[in-house]
Amino acid sequence: MQERGREMNAVAENAVPRIFDSGAEARRAVRRGDHRAPTAGIAPGFVQANLAVLPKALADDFFRFCQFNPKPCPLLAASEPGDPRLPLLGEDLDIRTDIPRYRVWRKGELVDEVDDLMRIWRDDLVAFAIGCSFSFEEALVEDGIRLRHIEQGTNVPMWRTSMQTRPAGPFHGPLVVSMRPLRPADAIRAIQITSRFPAVHGAPVHIGKPESIGIADLSRPDYGDAVEVKPDELPVFWACGVTPQSVIAAVRPEFSITHAPGYMLVTDLKNSRLSVF
Amino acid sequence: MQERGREMNAVAENAVPRIFDSGAEARRAVRRGDHRAPTAGIAPGFVQANLAVLPKALADDFFRFCQFNPKPCPLLAASEPGDPRLPLLGEDLDIRTDIPRYRVWRKGELVDEVDDLMRIWRDDLVAFAIGCSFSFEEALVEDGIRLRHIEQGTNVPMWRTSMQTRPAGPFHGPLVVSMRPLRPADAIRAIQITSRFPAVHGAPVHIGKPESIGIADLSRPDYGDAVEVKPDELPVFWACGVTPQSVIAAVRPEFSITHAPGYMLVTDLKNSRLSVF
Repeated sequence: MQERGREMNAVAENAVPRIFDSGAEARRAVRRGDHRAPTAGIAPGFVQANLAVLPKALADDFFRFCQFNPKPCPLLAASEPGDPRLPLLGEDLDIRTDIPRYRVWRKGELVDEVDDLMRIWRDDLVAFAIGCSFSFEEALVEDGIRLRHIEQGTNVPMWRTSMQTRPAGPFHGPLVVSMRPLRPADAIRAIQITSRFPAVHGAPVHIGKPESIGIADLSRPDYGDAVEVKPDELPVFWACGVTPQSVIAAVRPEFSITHAPGYMLVTDLKNSRLSVF
Repeated sequence: MQERGREMNAVAENAVPRIFDSGAEARRAVRRGDHRAPTAGIAPGFVQANLAVLPKALADDFFRFCQFNPKPCPLLAASEPGDPRLPLLGEDLDIRTDIPRYRVWRKGELVDEVDDLMRIWRDDLVAFAIGCSFSFEEALVEDGIRLRHIEQGTNVPMWRTSMQTRPAGPFHGPLVVSMRPLRPADAIRAIQITSRFPAVHGAPVHIGKPESIGIADLSRPDYGDAVEVKPDELPVFWACGVTPQSVIAAVRPEFSITHAPGYMLVTDLKNSRLSVF
């Protein structure tokens, strides 16, 4: 269970990623086995997604959970039961082969890490592709906003909060947030920019008063790595894709699959196309 | 000079305003002498504007100053020299008669308050109509955000900051900001809403760290009335229309005219039409 805590969007400690011109090229390299590394930065401009795979028996409730909680669980696409394709995200996309590393879970326990799902795919499985913060972070960095965890090459710090998600069926639990320290003018600009990207967590859920959302100590994140918050900075909190992971783990499904932290699904969607204005 | 410090958008202490269905109706009542009170709330949904009138010799530089400093000086319209009309803001609008109370200044000193400008209008005067915070405050309140100074019936608190405007000709000076205390989620929402209204000061210029912008004491505003900032709130700062007033006063023009605080120009523009998305 503790393993679930690791950031889905983890930054690889030591990877110098190969750069591909498109999401499709990156996926083909993954599929061929030519890319087995984390995916951060390998296809600049293209949306990367979190993966959650659940049996059909749980999928309907999880679908509703995503609908009810679009900030932590911005659903980009969901497959038909048993169908490994997600054509909305890439014509040739096969969820069984197109992620460099998967994690296999039984009753909430990590039981395996695998390079593809060919042998374990089942006819009742539904794949959920969920937006991740890479897209909005790219937009922030392109605007000249410096993100400390990226500059330090560490994982973004995350906390379980006192804010609750809206439950659906068995799925419930606290909202998990990521934090980026920003100077006030950058915080205002970051709110503007990320408001344009509802499909990848959207605007922050909180700013400046961590104790108001149940965060007692900014130097001790529940997941990821601590970053300094300087005296002239405000901590800015976004809903985090670890929320659905954490919520799924709590249900202890008989079988589920996720991407391995940092090994994301690279799609054909352009980050810029997620901007609503 | 001290008088300049009073909030242009002052809330009348004791007015129960008559409500008009349009800006044009409100202006006709003002023109007839039937409305001599502050204008806050008299034509809901319609844009109200700050007035600054300068001789042509200074007007070009002031025009550039507005262009350079759109957040404190969002120019809605400017007249031709000597022309009292502002047709962009109302077909029949006459700047000499359509504001309930004017202030007349000589060399930066307040010399008179008058009900109309018919006797003192000159062929070389240029009228500037500058967006005011009424419009974005209306949008915030309609969204359910509570603004303490409105609930208290006091003037919004304002400070001269350590942030400088971009000079143009003789016009220069510090940015003046207004402050509204908001809980973090409301602050994020207020940033989103006011970002849509660049013509009326737009997004905040600062949030949460008053000392970073030269504000030493939130309980002692330079202008307006103090409001409490509760422990779970952040002070949110917007560029303020007192900035151009203060900048003009510093130049000590041989002759200038402004509206009296709280006695604004009511226009035919709908607040909603100022929204850029």
